[in-house]
Amino acid sequence: MDLHILDHRLRVTSISKNGLVNFTHPLIKLIFLRNRTRCKFFSLTETPENYTVVLDEEGFKELRPSEHLQVESSIWLPLNVVSNGNASSSSQAVGVTKIAKSVIAPLAQQHVSVFMLSTYQTDFILVKEKDLSVVVSTLEEEFNIYKEEGGESVPVHCQDVSNGLHKNGREGTVHPVLIPKNQFCVMSLDPDTLPSIATTLIDVLFYSSSPKEDPQSSPSQECVKFFSFSLIDGYISLVMDTEAQRQFPADLLFTSSSGELWRMVRIGGQPLGFDECGIVAQISQPLADSDISAYYISTFSFDHALSQSDMSWVMQMNHTDHI
Amino acid sequence: MDLHILDHRLRVTSISKNGLVNFTHPLIKLIFLRNRTRCKFFSLTETPENYTVVLDEEGFKELRPSEHLQVESSIWLPLNVVSNGNASSSSQAVGVTKIAKSVIAPLAQQHVSVFMLSTYQTDFILVKEKDLSVVVSTLEEEFNIYKEEGGESVPVHCQDVSNGLHKNGREGTVHPVLIPKNQFCVMSLDPDTLPSIATTLIDVLFYSSSPKEDPQSSPSQECVKFFSFSLIDGYISLVMDTEAQRQFPADLLFTSSSGELWRMVRIGGQPLGFDECGIVAQISQPLADSDISAYYISTFSFDHALSQSDMSWVMQMNHTDHI
Repeated sequence: MDLHILDHRLRVTSISKNGLVNFTHPLIKLIFLRNRTRCKFFSLTETPENYTVVLDEEGFKELRPSEHLQVESSIWLPLNVVSNGNASSSSQAVGVTKIAKSVIAPLAQQHVSVFMLSTYQTDFILVKEKDLSVVVSTLEEEFNIYKEEGGESVPVHCQDVSNGLHKNGREGTVHPVLIPKNQFCVMSLDPDTLPSIATTLIDVLFYSSSPKEDPQSSPSQECVKFFSFSLIDGYISLVMDTEAQRQFPADLLFTSSSGELWRMVRIGGQPLGFDECGIVAQISQPLADSDISAYYISTFSFDHALSQSDMSWVMQMNHTDHI
Repeated sequence: MDLHILDHRLRVTSISKNGLVNFTHPLIKLIFLRNRTRCKFFSLTETPENYTVVLDEEGFKELRPSEHLQVESSIWLPLNVVSNGNASSSSQAVGVTKIAKSVIAPLAQQHVSVFMLSTYQTDFILVKEKDLSVVVSTLEEEFNIYKEEGGESVPVHCQDVSNGLHKNGREGTVHPVLIPKNQFCVMSLDPDTLPSIATTLIDVLFYSSSPKEDPQSSPSQECVKFFSFSLIDGYISLVMDTEAQRQFPADLLFTSSSGELWRMVRIGGQPLGFDECGIVAQISQPLADSDISAYYISTFSFDHALSQSDMSWVMQMNHTDHI
């Protein structure tokens, strides 16, 4: 298998709920006006706490400093696992499950913190730029590693970082999990049809807190607001719950042929931060053990795993205070 | 003929060019998300100086106070002339010409300041609420006057204001005019198809100062940026130059059958303010004398008349230093 270090230098930021109005202008530009920006990696995820925005340096230039904007200090690089045509040996599971044993667990053992961003098309594993040499030395046994530079893929080998390697990771903190009642779908959209859903998407992303003239049934307390939009290298991915989905025209958004709905597990009773390692590993391990496909989306405060199975795999996580 | 005092209490505001980013959020709501607002009268006009926003009190609530927002202190009421089915006696001319002698000139003589807002559908004459009794006493000889109140039209008569009437208006200041090179079209749009042009409209209104990846030919120095969008009682009107028009799909915006282009006259070398009277009268008089149809759009700083004729009528304005 190949591992590609993509040619994006990313920032992970958070916009406060009541500060979003100050960022409507740059965010709409980044989402809808591709010919006015050089940004190639953009992701916006709404959770009850805030909006997580992950974007490359070109996109980051659009965000003005503000009391409402928190910026994680590191530069993050996205990694992408590419199967080189060989049929998967045993498992058909995809998402974070596919890379649980080959990427997530080894990085956790080396105390490398990761930020996961699953999309409809693929899974990005974001690592801090300063951890790159440890990442390469950790994963080069399992993968052919390439660094994308100006459209070319250049092989990368570990130089002289083995001195920094840890052999045994310590056990991570066990975080409580929450399983909300609402169900989610993971969808995509032809970028050329993005204008067709612009007003609906703008409404959902930027005005959901504003009252409507004809209010619809409000979601139950046990539902969690979660909406994710990404436009990465020209590919669009959307994750939304069934209530949001009803607002979009059914014929424009497409999903996998099974069309099944996904349940979510939110990880972290307190904001997780960006330094702790092993959070994704802790979740992906029981998923991999049970061969369950899962999307995984990290945000500024909490992590989110989406699976189609019943939630029995959650019980396999040790000492879990699930709510 | 009937004159209707419409059931809107309007504010006239200006947003500075570099302050627009702070108002993208409320303006997009007012333009595109009709079910999230009770605003029924909204007009946004871009000129080189600023953005003029005219909107009712429900809409005005959406605009947060800011150093970038100027608010004219008066409440303005829109008047609308309604022909009651009688064929026009002599003239087919429309717009400000139609009301030049019956509304504009008499109000100027009574020192009533007006703010004109022509749209594709009709012409609104805005007057200050405090001038209303003078307006009624001035125009009730010529018109049956009705006040719209909660959907009903109630006849209005002058009570006791004749003491305030002036018999002779003094000559107004003569303002220089500018005739830009670009040509304009006046168009409309089915409100249900507004989402189809949302990204283009957003691009033109909010991002025209932002560089494009594939820059188009920049307009000549002698062209003047002017773009007006209004959504009033469910009717949409757009005024734009041919360069902006090319960015919209030709099949969605519709215009009058002649489809002719309009030339503009800008009035005012210095900002006109809101207290001087007779500016519209001074322009509409030569238009009426020559029976020339014209749209007229006041903005926060300058006034704008649009006509399809050659510009010889401008020469009939006394002492005009036209550029």
